[in-house]
Amino acid sequence: MRNKPARKLQELLRLPPGERVDLSRYDARATPGAPDGKQAAQAAADRMGKQLARLQERLWAAATAGDHRRVLLVLQGMDTSGKGGTVKHVIGQLNPSGCRITAFKAPTEEEREHDFLWRVRRALPGPGEIGIFDRSHYEDVLIARVRHLARPAEIGSRYGLINDFERSLAEDGVALVKCFLHLSYDEQRRRLLRRLDRPDKHWKFAPGDIDERALWPAYQEAYELALERCAAPYAPWYLVPADRRWYRDWAISRLLLERLRDLDPRYPEADFDVADCRERLLKQT
Amino acid sequence: MRNKPARKLQELLRLPPGERVDLSRYDARATPGAPDGKQAAQAAADRMGKQLARLQERLWAAATAGDHRRVLLVLQGMDTSGKGGTVKHVIGQLNPSGCRITAFKAPTEEEREHDFLWRVRRALPGPGEIGIFDRSHYEDVLIARVRHLARPAEIGSRYGLINDFERSLAEDGVALVKCFLHLSYDEQRRRLLRRLDRPDKHWKFAPGDIDERALWPAYQEAYELALERCAAPYAPWYLVPADRRWYRDWAISRLLLERLRDLDPRYPEADFDVADCRERLLKQT
Repeated sequence: MRNKPARKLQELLRLPPGERVDLSRYDARATPGAPDGKQAAQAAADRMGKQLARLQERLWAAATAGDHRRVLLVLQGMDTSGKGGTVKHVIGQLNPSGCRITAFKAPTEEEREHDFLWRVRRALPGPGEIGIFDRSHYEDVLIARVRHLARPAEIGSRYGLINDFERSLAEDGVALVKCFLHLSYDEQRRRLLRRLDRPDKHWKFAPGDIDERALWPAYQEAYELALERCAAPYAPWYLVPADRRWYRDWAISRLLLERLRDLDPRYPEADFDVADCRERLLKQT
Repeated sequence: MRNKPARKLQELLRLPPGERVDLSRYDARATPGAPDGKQAAQAAADRMGKQLARLQERLWAAATAGDHRRVLLVLQGMDTSGKGGTVKHVIGQLNPSGCRITAFKAPTEEEREHDFLWRVRRALPGPGEIGIFDRSHYEDVLIARVRHLARPAEIGSRYGLINDFERSLAEDGVALVKCFLHLSYDEQRRRLLRRLDRPDKHWKFAPGDIDERALWPAYQEAYELALERCAAPYAPWYLVPADRRWYRDWAISRLLLERLRDLDPRYPEADFDVADCRERLLKQT
């Protein structure tokens, strides 16, 4: 049984910065680097959950002693690609008090009065936290491009602004993990149909989802541009095949785990006299 | 084996509004209403975790259709009483995207420029969310009282302001679950000593914790006043014996579960034509 991928998953899934991306070349049902089969992957993901929680505690503890580092997981993908499921199953294994989760919706009136990065800056994780973006500033070069929500020149300028922004984050100690959940057109139909079949899933559905789906090719193109123009060594994009839920959860757990291990946060040394404190405590009646 | 408490735990742990509270009369090692023994309670808490997650999803789904209700869990208790542990173990079983957790620290300069409820209002859960306060506005009648951080008359006025505030929350659809984690003086010493014994727990310790502990009687008195003056039918205080961690987790899971069942949130009906949507989806090639 092959429990550990030979190479780092980061290397397997990372899109090379600056290279053209052709999404049609990637199989959304693929399982690169995964343990053999669904059950083994789920068991591995459970084990990783515990490891992630331990590393998260260290990251948090280090922050109490001035370590400014934090993690930011960016989740992007078409409707039903599993952004919410990732939060539930992967992030759900962490200590919720150290997670800062933001689901970005259509911008509010207040948000539209500011530049497109304003609301993102306000949602960043603090030192020691793990931030999770369910959608993100990338929507401003995705739906904004497909739906012509801004002038082409303005949208064109956003790629550079995003790169500058993400570089400044990286320099400020933010470890970026950007995941594109790559779903196939057919699997999206199956998932939307399932939402229609189950009355307890109707709340997740809106007829507008069908209109968005009709724009699939335009969305894929917008994604290809974003993935190509905004991948950088300090802010890589990972293409996560997402037709199989168990693979998606395993892969994102693994990517987070590898990143946290790279950071290698440490419990801080006591900045007080431990023996003296013990004595004082024992003296208190 | 007695898996279900005969009465609602709410009734067993609720402090009667308006009655004098004498904390010394409550055993912090007691386990009122619990299943027999630690293992049975942990198994029951695991099962409740799944039930809580299902009810949480319903609460969230109902909010998408205009239901304004939400839950606010307020956790108060002395240092080491297990507020953080409750978030980790009880709230950790929920979907993190529907939780809004705030740990209130000493107020910042900006917060001190506003009235004491300002920062609390900004941290309230939105419709469908479960809010969790690790410490809360009660600190302004607890440490503020013990440490003389405001004039006595001002502190005296805060109980009424808190009651008005919580009544307005309840009228606005906020289901309040206020838990006082009742820890014994001896158990606090054991827990502080354990933090000193383990280098990976040193970051949780500060010598100032010993100074706070020296004020134990004053804190107990401040708690008694707050529990007596700010318990109301719409915003009850539950006294949760907290010397045994497994009981604390079981009891708070149970209190949340009972509250959510009382709310009985429902999945909303589809406000669109399901058959028509299915047909449109199947027609898309």
